Amino acid sequence: MIRVTVWGENVHEKTNATVGKIYPEGMHECIAQALRRDPGFEVRTATLDMPEHGLTEEILENTDVITWWGHVAHGKVEEKIVSRVHKRVLEGMGIIVLHSGHYSKIFRRLLGTNCSLKWRECGERERVWVCNPSHPIAQGIGDCIELENTEMYGEPFGIPPPDEQVFISWYEGGEVFRSGNCWRRGAGKLFYFSPGHETYPIYHNPKIQMVLRNACKWAVADGPRWVDACPNVPIEKAPEKLTLKGESVHVPGQAGFR
Amino acid sequence: MIRVTVWGENVHEKTNATVGKIYPEGMHECIAQALRRDPGFEVRTATLDMPEHGLTEEILENTDVITWWGHVAHGKVEEKIVSRVHKRVLEGMGIIVLHSGHYSKIFRRLLGTNCSLKWRECGERERVWVCNPSHPIAQGIGDCIELENTEMYGEPFGIPPPDEQVFISWYEGGEVFRSGNCWRRGAGKLFYFSPGHETYPIYHNPKIQMVLRNACKWAVADGPRWVDACPNVPIEKAPEKLTLKGESVHVPGQAGFR
Amino acid sequence: MIRVTVWGENVHEKTNATVGKIYPEGMHECIAQALRRDPGFEVRTATLDMPEHGLTEEILENTDVITWWGHVAHGKVEEKIVSRVHKRVLEGMGIIVLHSGHYSKIFRRLLGTNCSLKWRECGERERVWVCNPSHPIAQGIGDCIELENTEMYGEPFGIPPPDEQVFISWYEGGEVFRSGNCWRRGAGKLFYFSPGHETYPIYHNPKIQMVLRNACKWAVADGPRWVDACPNVPIEKAPEKLTLKGESVHVPGQAGFR
Amino acid sequence: MIRVTVWGENVHEKTNATVGKIYPEGMHECIAQALRRDPGFEVRTATLDMPEHGLTEEILENTDVITWWGHVAHGKVEEKIVSRVHKRVLEGMGIIVLHSGHYSKIFRRLLGTNCSLKWRECGERERVWVCNPSHPIAQGIGDCIELENTEMYGEPFGIPPPDEQVFISWYEGGEVFRSGNCWRRGAGKLFYFSPGHETYPIYHNPKIQMVLRNACKWAVADGPRWVDACPNVPIEKAPEKLTLKGESVHVPGQAGFR
Repeated sequence: MIRVTVWGENVHEKTNATVGKIYPEGMHECIAQALRRDPGFEVRTATLDMPEHGLTEEILENTDVITWWGHVAHGKVEEKIVSRVHKRVLEGMGIIVLHSGHYSKIFRRLLGTNCSLKWRECGERERVWVCNPSHPIAQGIGDCIELENTEMYGEPFGIPPPDEQVFISWYEGGEVFRSGNCWRRGAGKLFYFSPGHETYPIYHNPKIQMVLRNACKWAVADGPRWVDACPNVPIEKAPEKLTLKGESVHVPGQAGFR
Repeated sequence: MIRVTVWGENVHEKTNATVGKIYPEGMHECIAQALRRDPGFEVRTATLDMPEHGLTEEILENTDVITWWGHVAHGKVEEKIVSRVHKRVLEGMGIIVLHSGHYSKIFRRLLGTNCSLKWRECGERERVWVCNPSHPIAQGIGDCIELENTEMYGEPFGIPPPDEQVFISWYEGGEVFRSGNCWRRGAGKLFYFSPGHETYPIYHNPKIQMVLRNACKWAVADGPRWVDACPNVPIEKAPEKLTLKGESVHVPGQAGFR
Repeated sequence: MIRVTVWGENVHEKTNATVGKIYPEGMHECIAQALRRDPGFEVRTATLDMPEHGLTEEILENTDVITWWGHVAHGKVEEKIVSRVHKRVLEGMGIIVLHSGHYSKIFRRLLGTNCSLKWRECGERERVWVCNPSHPIAQGIGDCIELENTEMYGEPFGIPPPDEQVFISWYEGGEVFRSGNCWRRGAGKLFYFSPGHETYPIYHNPKIQMVLRNACKWAVADGPRWVDACPNVPIEKAPEKLTLKGESVHVPGQAGFR
Repeated sequence: MIRVTVWGENVHEKTNATVGKIYPEGMHECIAQALRRDPGFEVRTATLDMPEHGLTEEILENTDVITWWGHVAHGKVEEKIVSRVHKRVLEGMGIIVLHSGHYSKIFRRLLGTNCSLKWRECGERERVWVCNPSHPIAQGIGDCIELENTEMYGEPFGIPPPDEQVFISWYEGGEVFRSGNCWRRGAGKLFYFSPGHETYPIYHNPKIQMVLRNACKWAVADGPRWVDACPNVPIEKAPEKLTLKGESVHVPGQAGFR
């Protein structure tokens, strides 16, 4: 079983009537149900307003992949929780960041850049093209996904070069955007997928849902949990025979800030 | 002129007699003098104990490339200064991170990973091999740099895959390490170079000094300062003719946490 | 079932007594048996001296992953067969190139570079380090693989930057080498693994055998066969409504050399 | 001085009236003149119909960067000349491949893939977006280049992942394309730029011309000519002290096919 935690801000759903109508149980619940269509997933949801934003140590310990949708409340996510999620990703927990999550603390922390972009909200048409048809995340999608009404996200996108480019989007207003990008961070895999503006029923779209399921499967770690350390390998344990030359100033615990 | 700021912790130089003898004016001054051998550089130094760690807004505004050496006092670098340096890198300031700087706040913030490694301090021999002879940073180095006494840094190195691999090191004790790695972060270029343990006269080595000069030249931005923003492109300014479909819920300033 | 074709030159085995003793049935058979230890593989072998080098259209049509070991007879591999293998890789057949296969026609054709390296044959010790512990190919290997006697391959290695770096090797004589490298070519995955000099029993080593099994699993395509074409999308089939502006000089079949 | 050789097929110019009117002296001459606007370039042209396609050993020896435009006559470029160009690129000669050159022998040889794409010729609008504003090739271009009439090239583009992504194009008909891509091959730099269909005056466009000048400057080698070899490092020359273990079967010249 792949254990997925779908995290949502759950703010717009409660404050905006349009969003509330499209996602009566919240975007997170819609996404969770899309994942549950595959019996290989075990899905829970978590939202900003829960204690610890629903991301307790125990829940994250038992999460293989987390999905993240946030927008107006990035600043309200506690640093302590961001660090907890960051640590789990480096250990091997996969993470799928969605739409306005490009400005989330966790995404910017994993990438080290601003992740800025251009944007326009007027319901224009988007076409999400597959530029890498053999990629696991693109399987079953065909040529492209057509979205009748979306929010434009346009280049330049302030990200480090993706390790893998899966999708590039076309917008009716004339812009383009790298809409499906993969990176490795530690033992974890990160996929950013841009469609998902809250005032359109994008997460109800079957192809979008397929991308989410593909991405969660792709994002599962390939090996056991990576336990990070900065181990000293003493002379006697060196693979080759060594003698001490000069004095050692090694002071246990001096290896630096952690 | 390339304006370089050489930042050093300047702690070991004052607390460790061995280090004090090798670098009587501090590692930072030794590195600065190595750079000044090329008249195309204008070099200043800055240390941890200066006000704002010597990295005021004005100094950073007038820095094209910063070099960073830290070890026991990573935790003492103020978050505010780290953020200031981070912002300047994304705008286009180059950054050369050295040796134990792998655990500095700025390096880990730019890369998003732990940057851990294995290590051993017993004065063993290191050979820094050029694996990319056509790279600008490798020019004039020849095959490799031999260092009689160093501190071993060994794989696995907890970094994202480098955009460019320049050097890989061999250690007498049997380990290997990706010792010269390039990344792009925003408009800035980042080069990590591992040799430089404080109890050996590594920064006095002519080939090491040549790498530092090459790296500082390489790290200069290729274009004007990048001013980060997340601009809205209103309908009337869209490249293609558009009409509003559905309602816009755009709220100025709602673009998210910055 | 993963269908693997293990291709070997099978020249040294017949002309060199040392090699004949280590690999009485040929290196290819030794590698095939290593793969067959996993019941998920269906393995056949093929050698240079067979008709069409054992790589008929039918055999390649039914091959998911091919492994390739060649050395003194790279020049004897027919261009027509190289092209056939190349086409299959771009369609999605995985390929594992071993040791002196760095100079094979197929490897150089897939990468576009010379793939030269430094070398020395004197039975020195090699240590193959895992630099990417979370990579599928590195699973179960532990820290490293120690090989008592090998042939040194040293940087610089004339390859394009690998998409993924899995192993880096240390040699007793002082050199280093990027010994485990992954690339994507079309729908196919390519893994180059350097250990395997014919006068040492390297393919009998259990950890080396594990790498081969891991690599063959990794190299299986993630999707259906990619059928390459350069399709014209006529105006009437364009995703957006278009009118012809200016004259079309499109001549069917003019799309260029194939 | 940067010595550029602009290579053009020069077939359409002579057989198609529309092309002949737009480029009376040939596309190659138009491109050459665009480059000559910068006094730092020394430019010659060469065409398919010249002896050795104008690419003699002497001319290539004295070329720092070559540009390549071909379309209907890829198959007529002699293998011997392709190999000569390939060798020079690996030595450090830069290469800019344009438009339908995606199907040229030299481009496909350098990349190892088919380089196929979708296409449509109906004079639609293209917008070439800068997705990497700090890249040397993007300097002075601004946001994007608007081309009123072009030929659509659409994803998926059968290339290996670019080392650097500079431009992505938008087409009126709904497609997108990675229109500005950089790779390293050996000591050489390769830039592919897609605009340039022969029946439109694209190479007369000032911004397109600026991209060509930027690209030629970017493509100059960073170091001396790389002389490829596969050198043996005998025991006595090994960096570390070694003794022969087992017998050496090294046969001079046995290093394999070249």
